[in-house]
Amino acid sequence: MPVPPKDPFGWLDAAAEQRRRDGLTRTLRPRPADAGPLDLAGNDYLGLTRHPAVTAAAADAAHRWGAGATGSRLVTGSTALHAELEAALAEFCGFEAALVLSSGYAANLAAVTALTGPGGLVVSDAANHASLIDGCRLSRADTAVVAHADPDAVRKALDAHQGRAVAVTDSVFSVDGDAAPLPALAAACRAHGAALLVDDAHGLGVLGDGGRGGPYAAGLAGAYDTVVTVTLSKSLGSQGGAVLGPRRVIEHLLNTARTFIFDTGLAPAATGAALAALEVLRAEPGRPARVRDVAAELHRRFTAAGLTAREPDAAVVSVRAPYPEAAVRWAADCRAEGVAVGCFRPPSVPDGVSRLRLTARADLGPDEVRRAADTVLRTAPPGA
Amino acid sequence: MPVPPKDPFGWLDAAAEQRRRDGLTRTLRPRPADAGPLDLAGNDYLGLTRHPAVTAAAADAAHRWGAGATGSRLVTGSTALHAELEAALAEFCGFEAALVLSSGYAANLAAVTALTGPGGLVVSDAANHASLIDGCRLSRADTAVVAHADPDAVRKALDAHQGRAVAVTDSVFSVDGDAAPLPALAAACRAHGAALLVDDAHGLGVLGDGGRGGPYAAGLAGAYDTVVTVTLSKSLGSQGGAVLGPRRVIEHLLNTARTFIFDTGLAPAATGAALAALEVLRAEPGRPARVRDVAAELHRRFTAAGLTAREPDAAVVSVRAPYPEAAVRWAADCRAEGVAVGCFRPPSVPDGVSRLRLTARADLGPDEVRRAADTVLRTAPPGA
Repeated sequence: MPVPPKDPFGWLDAAAEQRRRDGLTRTLRPRPADAGPLDLAGNDYLGLTRHPAVTAAAADAAHRWGAGATGSRLVTGSTALHAELEAALAEFCGFEAALVLSSGYAANLAAVTALTGPGGLVVSDAANHASLIDGCRLSRADTAVVAHADPDAVRKALDAHQGRAVAVTDSVFSVDGDAAPLPALAAACRAHGAALLVDDAHGLGVLGDGGRGGPYAAGLAGAYDTVVTVTLSKSLGSQGGAVLGPRRVIEHLLNTARTFIFDTGLAPAATGAALAALEVLRAEPGRPARVRDVAAELHRRFTAAGLTAREPDAAVVSVRAPYPEAAVRWAADCRAEGVAVGCFRPPSVPDGVSRLRLTARADLGPDEVRRAADTVLRTAPPGA
Repeated sequence: MPVPPKDPFGWLDAAAEQRRRDGLTRTLRPRPADAGPLDLAGNDYLGLTRHPAVTAAAADAAHRWGAGATGSRLVTGSTALHAELEAALAEFCGFEAALVLSSGYAANLAAVTALTGPGGLVVSDAANHASLIDGCRLSRADTAVVAHADPDAVRKALDAHQGRAVAVTDSVFSVDGDAAPLPALAAACRAHGAALLVDDAHGLGVLGDGGRGGPYAAGLAGAYDTVVTVTLSKSLGSQGGAVLGPRRVIEHLLNTARTFIFDTGLAPAATGAALAALEVLRAEPGRPARVRDVAAELHRRFTAAGLTAREPDAAVVSVRAPYPEAAVRWAADCRAEGVAVGCFRPPSVPDGVSRLRLTARADLGPDEVRRAADTVLRTAPPGA
């Protein structure tokens, strides 16, 4: 494509060159359908995305309801399947009502923006997920970013504000896999009359009795002042997100949340798959404990060998790498030996520290766990 | 649920009461799987969402690839199916490269935020879709909202700015179904060295040779300075969105766009369905002309009977209603007679005017078009 004299995208070439120099260029690596490497990089914590009941439900929903929802949930995009999933999610996690959106990202944007606004305050953990941060930006509320996992900091920020306030946190932080101090956060919010919004993307299916999630484990299920978002794309092996909470909150969202009103409803296949995955989880309540055991075993192996890894609170095991290029090479070496692991680099890490990120899966056998740990240790770079 | 003394959600009840008083309360009406009313409310313009080749492709992809993508497209979420769809979309619409995201909303947030930023200028049509508006807000660029479909206003806004600039417009506006003056907008941008970003959600599959979309029809396919977003959930009957443009723009997005990096990849079923729908569209290039004919026929019937309706440029036919409650009742009366039509009220309409919104479909026969028009006319409220 010849470049014209007035080139509106010329600056992109300089940005790309800078990324190359910094070792931060990202590329897509499409995977084949057939068994590739041993996967400890995805978020399929319970091993349900290829479960025959789940894929059959996806296929059945596409045949029965069509390939798409055809419109906004408020126009033609709501099927009885969506309503069934919403009822099942609310019941399972212990909340009055639920609203399904097309992604966890959309659910977080919806919840944050609908529950606050100009003049209100959002208190946001410094390590929160990008979608919560974008929700804060879109809300046009005052946002106080507070120290990571620090209920006292939340309390101080709330005390400094008059009027409506919401504290926002991940239940399990994506990068390091550590859990938020939910009971203390809830107490801080309650003392102030603030709402608590918890993103349970990495908690649902992993934490709490039978996988009912982080808020359930913290005694917050059904609380009058707590709202929870979940993804359908991790433990439930599908796609989409949902907001759970008091019915009046859900009613408010469906009337006001732009990412709900102006988006096409979740596809029937994804809706049916998530519903089937929830049924498997109910029928096999041992899966959440198994995924936590696998994570603990990986952590044990890594720290015994001298690597720096935080004790996992859920399924994510994060191992420090000395610098971005070393992390990239480490992940590539693992892949070359048949083990896929994640590699988090700036700007995807809040503290600028690059990491290998492994995700435990409930369907990994002891031999697979051993093989994964052996491979990570064998390929560890100097300084890790 | 008992309400405590410090109730963080008490204000929601007042907001709900205000909506009730204003006749603006929204409710979800989940539909059954079996044939309900004659549908002129959804966005399935080409009638492909229940096409056997499309639903079979969705089902096949779920079986073959699993129910979900399992992670970000940059980690485990990219399959060969995503790559195939991206190549097919780029080739069909005439652009160098494409990037598939989980929704059109996410695609618009990605494109706007990645292509501008603090210090930059976004010139945005006053009637643009909510997702473009949210993209402008998230970008933290200076945003100049200009008069609807007014290339001179765009030119003036660009002339008042030094440095990077992007003009942003829908190709077909969702509420009234009118087309943007793309050639004049492109000329204004080019004269200034600004980029043009076109949301072709309602143009793909409807406008341009064989349904190649609004930018293609305007001679902008493959232009060095033009970026296009599309949805996979309207003409392609599935779910998801995509950004099309010069390869360096797509590379920049996959390295920097937060709604791409931090979101789970589009589910295989939706990816496969969109790919199959694109193949049907290629094989049956008469579908786009048929949907435009149906829209023109509906408009002819409505205006001949004295209703106020804008001549449709694509598949959307919008009919004015005297006030919100009349619009709601009109739509309900149509539904009671077996015809589903959309009803747009504040805040989903930029000008505060409530409307019936009908969407033409390529698979409607002459009898169905007649029945739809007869029903709308028979149920029209006084003052319409």
